[in-house]
Amino acid sequence: MLITDINQMKQISKNLKKEGKTIGFVPTMGYLHKGHISLMECSKKDNDITIVSIFVNPTQFGPNEDLDKYPRDLERDLKICKEVAVDYVFHPKAEDMYPEGYSTYVVMETLTDKLCGKFRPGHFKGVLTVVNKLFNIVKPDKAYFGKKDYQQYIVIKKMVEDLNMDVDIIGCPLIREKDGLAMSSRNKYLSQEERERALSISKALFKAKDLFEKGETNPKNLIKEMKKIMENNVDEIQYIEIVNPKNLEPKEKVEKGDIILVAAFVGSTRLIDNIEL
Amino acid sequence: MLITDINQMKQISKNLKKEGKTIGFVPTMGYLHKGHISLMECSKKDNDITIVSIFVNPTQFGPNEDLDKYPRDLERDLKICKEVAVDYVFHPKAEDMYPEGYSTYVVMETLTDKLCGKFRPGHFKGVLTVVNKLFNIVKPDKAYFGKKDYQQYIVIKKMVEDLNMDVDIIGCPLIREKDGLAMSSRNKYLSQEERERALSISKALFKAKDLFEKGETNPKNLIKEMKKIMENNVDEIQYIEIVNPKNLEPKEKVEKGDIILVAAFVGSTRLIDNIEL
Repeated sequence: MLITDINQMKQISKNLKKEGKTIGFVPTMGYLHKGHISLMECSKKDNDITIVSIFVNPTQFGPNEDLDKYPRDLERDLKICKEVAVDYVFHPKAEDMYPEGYSTYVVMETLTDKLCGKFRPGHFKGVLTVVNKLFNIVKPDKAYFGKKDYQQYIVIKKMVEDLNMDVDIIGCPLIREKDGLAMSSRNKYLSQEERERALSISKALFKAKDLFEKGETNPKNLIKEMKKIMENNVDEIQYIEIVNPKNLEPKEKVEKGDIILVAAFVGSTRLIDNIEL
Repeated sequence: MLITDINQMKQISKNLKKEGKTIGFVPTMGYLHKGHISLMECSKKDNDITIVSIFVNPTQFGPNEDLDKYPRDLERDLKICKEVAVDYVFHPKAEDMYPEGYSTYVVMETLTDKLCGKFRPGHFKGVLTVVNKLFNIVKPDKAYFGKKDYQQYIVIKKMVEDLNMDVDIIGCPLIREKDGLAMSSRNKYLSQEERERALSISKALFKAKDLFEKGETNPKNLIKEMKKIMENNVDEIQYIEIVNPKNLEPKEKVEKGDIILVAAFVGSTRLIDNIEL
């Protein structure tokens, strides 16, 4: 069932809670792919009711980013949500989420200044604000985020903890295409030739994991090997970092459980990917 | 019943909601006076359950402000809460509200840069953050704020609206001592001599209201008359402004419903007061 009105969504969630139903929530920007579907499946398994939001959130895009061209196809998304049999799709209007005079934001003074946050100033402020709003509207017991956006997952977990919100944040595994490319709505931007070159990102991650498992624990060496694979394929490496999975601090000596995070441009498309060691 | 544990408070509120009880909430910094009691009485009238929080919130004090000497008397406060027969008193520890590594804040990009916000940078960031946290913990249906802190009341109302929170913000009338002094926990700081001089603030407000009712609509003239009364009594006038009660913008021509806001130092004590026209 499609809901576009914020107050209607609030009322539905309120009633569901009153009836003692548990709510699972999958916030998305739409243009759904198998990654999103895996989140919906997780939610359906864990909760009585699953609500998916589709909202391309303007406040998390920088002035030179791809807000306008971000892929949208509501009809297709609704068909997918129907096939997966989620209970509600919440698709609010930007002017209702951010009416004239809107001025309240959630900010985080750690975690958001590094990795993607360093290259996308204001991005996490927008993410935290919209997720906070969506949680208040949808009132989920559990909310599902893909670990493809690993920093986002950690930052949202931290917001919920700091602000004493009543939501369990569930991080779900990154889903890849058969050839290894991490699933992303932005993959649509890639030409066939760019898509080939983009594969170097996952290849580099797999290589690093392989080297780590063979005994290499120096992050510099691992990153050097990754760069070798990516350098002639991607157009710009924004960062490759091997970090502690909880606080996102770079490691001096790599350990099991650490995570390698990558952001790179292929053509004008910014892609992110990661792998847990 | 005194609750100091955040998770216990969350669980109690969750259970109350499940039982269909309505929760009224009175957040305070303690050292309770008749103003607070009037909020509790309002809450008791409107709701099944009334919860009072007592928490001197460190994040809303500036580095040169009175956090350390802010008056505290938990025993006395608990006695008052018992007399008024509120249901729960929530008194969390600062180190539980802001554990090591705490880093999430709620900020507002309008309304907070003027009046008190101008003289207390960061103050409203601290207020919004703690109120957001307390609302998430206590889950009130209605929350009660004194209009003595008028800007705070407006700013919290705006946060709740912007972040789609499920709380009705109820502004309750400012309560005065018999001689006109606005009730405040900070009045305790005043010596007898300072207290006398502090009366000039309410006197000036009453005078301005009287002049307005007699036809004076020029804010400059009203403020000039107020300054005459206050100048030789208070030690510093931080601001006197006549504003629109909703957006706190200064008025060029004063109308019924506008509000006069004052902040002044008497000795080292900062006092605020206001009057609705």
